[in-house]
Amino acid sequence: MDYVYGPGRNHLFVPGPVNIPDPVIRAMTRNNEDYRSPAIPALTKDLLEDVKKIFKTTTGTPFLFPTTGTGAWESALTNTLSPGDRIVSFLIGQFSLLWIDQQKRLNFNVDVVESEWGRGADLDILASKIASDRTHSIKAICIVHNETATGVTNNLAHVRQILDEYRHPALLLVDGVSSICALDFRMDEWGVDVALTGSQKALSLPTGLGIVCASPKALEAAKSARSLRVFFDWGDYLKFYKLGTYWPYTPSIHLLYGLRAALDLIFEEGLENVIERHKRLGKATRLAVEAWGLKNCTQKEEWYSDTVTAVMVPPYIDSSEVVKRGWKRYNLSLGLGLNKVAGKVFRIGHLGNLNELQLLGCLAGVEMILRDVGYPVELGSGVGAAGAYLRNATPMIPSRI
Amino acid sequence: MDYVYGPGRNHLFVPGPVNIPDPVIRAMTRNNEDYRSPAIPALTKDLLEDVKKIFKTTTGTPFLFPTTGTGAWESALTNTLSPGDRIVSFLIGQFSLLWIDQQKRLNFNVDVVESEWGRGADLDILASKIASDRTHSIKAICIVHNETATGVTNNLAHVRQILDEYRHPALLLVDGVSSICALDFRMDEWGVDVALTGSQKALSLPTGLGIVCASPKALEAAKSARSLRVFFDWGDYLKFYKLGTYWPYTPSIHLLYGLRAALDLIFEEGLENVIERHKRLGKATRLAVEAWGLKNCTQKEEWYSDTVTAVMVPPYIDSSEVVKRGWKRYNLSLGLGLNKVAGKVFRIGHLGNLNELQLLGCLAGVEMILRDVGYPVELGSGVGAAGAYLRNATPMIPSRI
Amino acid sequence: MDYVYGPGRNHLFVPGPVNIPDPVIRAMTRNNEDYRSPAIPALTKDLLEDVKKIFKTTTGTPFLFPTTGTGAWESALTNTLSPGDRIVSFLIGQFSLLWIDQQKRLNFNVDVVESEWGRGADLDILASKIASDRTHSIKAICIVHNETATGVTNNLAHVRQILDEYRHPALLLVDGVSSICALDFRMDEWGVDVALTGSQKALSLPTGLGIVCASPKALEAAKSARSLRVFFDWGDYLKFYKLGTYWPYTPSIHLLYGLRAALDLIFEEGLENVIERHKRLGKATRLAVEAWGLKNCTQKEEWYSDTVTAVMVPPYIDSSEVVKRGWKRYNLSLGLGLNKVAGKVFRIGHLGNLNELQLLGCLAGVEMILRDVGYPVELGSGVGAAGAYLRNATPMIPSRI
Amino acid sequence: MDYVYGPGRNHLFVPGPVNIPDPVIRAMTRNNEDYRSPAIPALTKDLLEDVKKIFKTTTGTPFLFPTTGTGAWESALTNTLSPGDRIVSFLIGQFSLLWIDQQKRLNFNVDVVESEWGRGADLDILASKIASDRTHSIKAICIVHNETATGVTNNLAHVRQILDEYRHPALLLVDGVSSICALDFRMDEWGVDVALTGSQKALSLPTGLGIVCASPKALEAAKSARSLRVFFDWGDYLKFYKLGTYWPYTPSIHLLYGLRAALDLIFEEGLENVIERHKRLGKATRLAVEAWGLKNCTQKEEWYSDTVTAVMVPPYIDSSEVVKRGWKRYNLSLGLGLNKVAGKVFRIGHLGNLNELQLLGCLAGVEMILRDVGYPVELGSGVGAAGAYLRNATPMIPSRI
Repeated sequence: MDYVYGPGRNHLFVPGPVNIPDPVIRAMTRNNEDYRSPAIPALTKDLLEDVKKIFKTTTGTPFLFPTTGTGAWESALTNTLSPGDRIVSFLIGQFSLLWIDQQKRLNFNVDVVESEWGRGADLDILASKIASDRTHSIKAICIVHNETATGVTNNLAHVRQILDEYRHPALLLVDGVSSICALDFRMDEWGVDVALTGSQKALSLPTGLGIVCASPKALEAAKSARSLRVFFDWGDYLKFYKLGTYWPYTPSIHLLYGLRAALDLIFEEGLENVIERHKRLGKATRLAVEAWGLKNCTQKEEWYSDTVTAVMVPPYIDSSEVVKRGWKRYNLSLGLGLNKVAGKVFRIGHLGNLNELQLLGCLAGVEMILRDVGYPVELGSGVGAAGAYLRNATPMIPSRI
Repeated sequence: MDYVYGPGRNHLFVPGPVNIPDPVIRAMTRNNEDYRSPAIPALTKDLLEDVKKIFKTTTGTPFLFPTTGTGAWESALTNTLSPGDRIVSFLIGQFSLLWIDQQKRLNFNVDVVESEWGRGADLDILASKIASDRTHSIKAICIVHNETATGVTNNLAHVRQILDEYRHPALLLVDGVSSICALDFRMDEWGVDVALTGSQKALSLPTGLGIVCASPKALEAAKSARSLRVFFDWGDYLKFYKLGTYWPYTPSIHLLYGLRAALDLIFEEGLENVIERHKRLGKATRLAVEAWGLKNCTQKEEWYSDTVTAVMVPPYIDSSEVVKRGWKRYNLSLGLGLNKVAGKVFRIGHLGNLNELQLLGCLAGVEMILRDVGYPVELGSGVGAAGAYLRNATPMIPSRI
Repeated sequence: MDYVYGPGRNHLFVPGPVNIPDPVIRAMTRNNEDYRSPAIPALTKDLLEDVKKIFKTTTGTPFLFPTTGTGAWESALTNTLSPGDRIVSFLIGQFSLLWIDQQKRLNFNVDVVESEWGRGADLDILASKIASDRTHSIKAICIVHNETATGVTNNLAHVRQILDEYRHPALLLVDGVSSICALDFRMDEWGVDVALTGSQKALSLPTGLGIVCASPKALEAAKSARSLRVFFDWGDYLKFYKLGTYWPYTPSIHLLYGLRAALDLIFEEGLENVIERHKRLGKATRLAVEAWGLKNCTQKEEWYSDTVTAVMVPPYIDSSEVVKRGWKRYNLSLGLGLNKVAGKVFRIGHLGNLNELQLLGCLAGVEMILRDVGYPVELGSGVGAAGAYLRNATPMIPSRI
Repeated sequence: MDYVYGPGRNHLFVPGPVNIPDPVIRAMTRNNEDYRSPAIPALTKDLLEDVKKIFKTTTGTPFLFPTTGTGAWESALTNTLSPGDRIVSFLIGQFSLLWIDQQKRLNFNVDVVESEWGRGADLDILASKIASDRTHSIKAICIVHNETATGVTNNLAHVRQILDEYRHPALLLVDGVSSICALDFRMDEWGVDVALTGSQKALSLPTGLGIVCASPKALEAAKSARSLRVFFDWGDYLKFYKLGTYWPYTPSIHLLYGLRAALDLIFEEGLENVIERHKRLGKATRLAVEAWGLKNCTQKEEWYSDTVTAVMVPPYIDSSEVVKRGWKRYNLSLGLGLNKVAGKVFRIGHLGNLNELQLLGCLAGVEMILRDVGYPVELGSGVGAAGAYLRNATPMIPSRI
């Protein structure tokens, strides 16, 4: 694979797949096992209990699908809705766009609420739609918590507030792919009915688990939902949960052991500390962008994402050139601008198992690249601004003696 | 995980997931990567080309879905068929049963041809159905090449012969989960339209790739198939194949590197040698079963499977006790009897990356267990019978100096 | 490395290096670390305490040298003796021969007591030498606990008894390379002054740690021993033990983490259970040899080794041909006959992390090879004899639910 | 091991053990093997040939001792010298001090030439000693190429020049532990008689191989050298080299496979490119130190080391506090000041498999720590200065498409 090797480590700053901690890599370095032995159900049982914690739910029921986020989306939709059902969905970037595309192709009646890319979901429009929907024709609200393409975090508490205000029974389906386990996500408190994420994001695992968590209301809805599904059906899982064997078909035992190790690390650090770390690294990144005199694609502070920052380049620069040089010269992997913002933004993913000096190394690289492509940034300026903040904000590592 | 550890290696003889070769484990011991870098498309391009070889196709188009065999089934069906389509499907054991269950739930009109468990697909009935189907109401034939629950291999060449005889245009959809890369499988020669397997079977990888290969006729059918699908849609993949980026959503780069290593090993050994090795180990297992005076669940030699042997125990023995003792006493993982044959058979999987002495160790274990549970087998008899055959049949390892 | 690959697992039955358990491989799959951070001393402190348990000593002081058994020998000798010192040393096979060669080259006055290969140390001669050594000119007795070349275990309790009977102050230096952590070894009870082993033997680690344990009397002797030594000097270690930093030069942190994992597994199984398992596998091997009608190189039952069996072949067979065919045909690694017994014996190592079915697989392989090279063994006979014993002797795996 | 875990990667910047590239970690993730099979000699043969390239020798004979640098020192001395032999040895820092301590304890007559720590070997004194040694009483010159404690590189070409000028036959023994494979090292051109390094340094492997390379003159000297040695004896190795089995005692096959992978990476990058990379990172580090207004412990540019920089802190700061905070707050591992410079310097190791952004991340961390401990550095200043240089100096990664 000589088209891959470069000296030193790859600096992985795409907003997923993210860096896998060494203990997790170790946990997955193993042979296959018989998933019907007593060991795998015992492992699964604990995982299902523990994974609820990252959703902050006690009443939800999690499913560990051997799939990706795209599959998790499909599972959320097909288990709760019937063809023709009206749903309100927010289009604010490439990933919400793709989910909406899926919703349409699955024959739902999608009421798209579009925002300019860089802005959050327009919740005023949601409020007006909910207010006027006396017949409860809206069956579900579909929203990404964090739009990975633009670095925009939506206010889910506000969504819940709107639904509650009008006592509207619509299900709340949330894509938490680039938020859960990194941003503060409160499934129970916010009344989220289906939340989902992918293993390769903040959980810092390889790709391959689509984790879906369903509220009791969602489970109830599943009983009457008429969308066809087999692989993604919750019912098959629930049947095997009751049997205590847990798996309707073969799971990836590698990812189960990996998830065990990943959760152990998250709990050792403390989920709240993990969230604080993401806030810290997100803010440091934004301070660097500011120091460089560049604009954040995210238009308002209220939407700033602590997992990914989409940086706008001046019009005379092609942002894909920034990404390309990162890869070819500095072994740095940045996120491309996608679709509407292709060429206009590059993205720094700062989620998952990551620390301050890794981020500063990345920012130092971005500075050099910006100069390489003709943007007159002062070298050290972003790193200095980020460092000035981080120096005060970073706690001692608690486990270190 | 103290409920797992036992001294020495686990002897993994379930018919999947199977043993992963060390070079494959090594290849997957790695961090995540940006799948949008130039490296992953370059890797994917070669994989798609090479994976065709294990299907023995030059005209097929492979898809590497991040899913399991169950998902691969769904992909095969939903891309080629429309709700209400009539399909002929053979019920000969637990896995064909599950596929049929899926076919029904996906709203196809399933014409089930059932055989006694332990017998192959009833191709005489197929012939009569095909013969009488002048209107070509049958849109597809669904058949497992190798039924993992009973150790029965169906004769696909014969299926093709029947279709050809009547010039019937039905698609031929084949579950090759426990056959491809182990048994002789000839996609092009047998006119298979969709063939599929899972990574954790004869490819000897972790679970997580559902590999689906579509003939040109199947790709054509996909254009008009009206079953809803998004995650499992071939069209999305084909779009990205054309772009040269290959992935409509995040792949597991671990499994891609693993697949690269797995294919390299298979090609180093030689696919035909791999198939010969499976024949050898399959026959050795059957000779042991015979020496023990036990019956093979497979009723006729023409259906004998070279990847799994379902061994019938006398009525006074519970086969699940055999499996349990294997696990608890000898660190041996055998396959349970499923559904109709639960308690009546245990299964020895002899597929994937396995050699003679591993199998003989397993057979020695089975002998001891049989005595433990009260069956008066002569210790050494099965190993001796298998060894007598293997000693003559086993070639020198070609790569060894 | 295509001269290595063979399908399936390598069956490793040389008497070291032995099979490494997967959890140990995992523990060592890691980057380097700063060994001067607080983490490594904390790890080392626990290891030094725990490693004493495998020597069954509470008063001994262990040293973890980054070396092999040969280096550990040198450390034992040079720290306790001065050039010209008279030592009594037993020559009973290739490894005692090599140790004696080292003793001579280090300028000790070696009084060699030779036995026929296949017999144990002649302790009657020892008794007479000790009895007549009124001036205490003998400074040390050097003895291998288990001679790996011939499968002979010496009676150390008897050696101690002789020394005690005559109140002789000679140091007792013991090579426990193929015994410690497999055979019953009692440093304190037997008054062993220096005991040593290598990581790649019963501890089931990679090669690279020479573990030396010194009694208080040995430490005292080290103060006046005039043999030159720096790398192997205990004094440098003791200095750093006191400082709490432990390492006079860079340790292999991989082997430290590996040792941690290895000890954890041994303690989980229980050291006494580990020893029982070795007795069981040793006896099973000897029963197979007997069933084949072959002779054990070890001439008397009192010397039978539970870690390695040297099997004599008939004069018309070259034992190296047995080993060669194992490698080339069955992916089986057996031990060669060395020096005086080259061509006459092959060796089955049954030590370290190993279980019953692994051994039976090996024995099945040996049977086939014996037939291949022209010895008329009945296939299955050895496996049957071993299995008949093992079936009754093997306990349930305690950790298994 | 909860005293170790911190989120994100450890930033390992001690001057050894250094970061192990992932492909090397992978290559070592394996079971033990029989080192007497044909595979290991075949592997060894190639390694011995290839390892010569990193010494830049065609006439030298390499030995791969299972030991550390301290053991490699001992091997170099005891194979070439006899007790009482006069040697000239340069004391310029902690590691030359330790080697001299070893030389004395091995009973050589050591003529120590001391320099202030931070200065190179005093070659004028060497010249005068050589000039006056008409009787050739000096048997060897012992010198470290790069003193790891102070970041001083000695001029070996000049040493050779002095010896040649006076046609002095003294052997030239060089500690290349922190130079070989990182700095330009020319065994043949400089007439080095014994050169040595350790696997955990620029080769970027775990600790455990002491690699010693002997010139024909050194091999000749070994024939008459009367220092006692067995484990470290070259003669035993040479005997097995001739037999084609290569190993007088058990090697670590893990480190052999690791060395294979490490050399492959070095050759893929190109040894000269590796050396250039070290020059680049060394210079960048020094530019940062300068920008911070701190002094390099190395007093003159001619001695600047491209593998380690010892940074002097102002008198009011304890350098060990810098190291401690790196570990506890930023997951950064820096080198302590040792012995005479304890508390006065901290060290940045920039050797082995490392790239620009890793270094810049480290430098960003050092800046923050300096502020933490009360030194008024401008954040970003060092990173900016280093980046300004690196941006121009760093080539595209050649293997990247």
